[in-house]
Amino acid sequence: MADATVWHDEGLDILDEPECLRLLETVPLGRVGICSGALPAILPVNFQLVGRSIVFRTGHGTKLDAAVRFAVVAFQADQYDARYHTGWSVLAIGQARDITENLDLIARDATVRPWAGGEREHYVTIEPELLTGRRINNDR
Amino acid sequence: MADATVWHDEGLDILDEPECLRLLETVPLGRVGICSGALPAILPVNFQLVGRSIVFRTGHGTKLDAAVRFAVVAFQADQYDARYHTGWSVLAIGQARDITENLDLIARDATVRPWAGGEREHYVTIEPELLTGRRINNDR
Repeated sequence: MADATVWHDEGLDILDEPECLRLLETVPLGRVGICSGALPAILPVNFQLVGRSIVFRTGHGTKLDAAVRFAVVAFQADQYDARYHTGWSVLAIGQARDITENLDLIARDATVRPWAGGEREHYVTIEPELLTGRRINNDR
Repeated sequence: MADATVWHDEGLDILDEPECLRLLETVPLGRVGICSGALPAILPVNFQLVGRSIVFRTGHGTKLDAAVRFAVVAFQADQYDARYHTGWSVLAIGQARDITENLDLIARDATVRPWAGGEREHYVTIEPELLTGRRINNDR
């Protein structure tokens, strides 16, 4: 059984939006939270931050691909060190959009790297309407 | 911008339930996915696996505390190494239950450590009805 106290509900600093964006740029992996029917799910994705947009790819016909179409989704990333009891978590909520056909709008600012080959890949972006973060304050 | 390819939709091995449970025991932090109204959210929690149950604590009156009461929630944990392109992700879906008043049922098998002090803490368990996992196959 893992023995560590990483997160709790007290002793957390609230992060402002610039800090949330800065932290999102430091990790390659995030997680997309979807509501499919009444059932929630969380799926890991590689992502890149382009400006204020979260960009990731989905395979055509996958569960994730279906779920994110025109849906409001959650996106979360975190980093933690159980040994030193430090860490942060950022949560974004916004509408997912397929930008495969309009990739230039995003890609002119950055190279969105392909995660897997194949012409059937879809590019999805989330423009956060809500962007919040918290960090463990180790001093408390 | 982070530069790594960690997850993609191909080249993934499906993990069976014993392996999912074994992996969950190796990490202290997981993430709870909820649907609050029509909006999804993902929140990090410390957790412990007790048998097949995921156990974590919530503060009274918090967003998480309200959301998980009698609700079907998602729980996800993962571990990845961007450098070596290895990693796994496990997803559980099930009904969350407040077991604060019946803690003995769970705690007789393990010490559920408190994350934060205070008598108002709630213990929550998720009994997975769905438990799935995938691992990056580095050889592909």
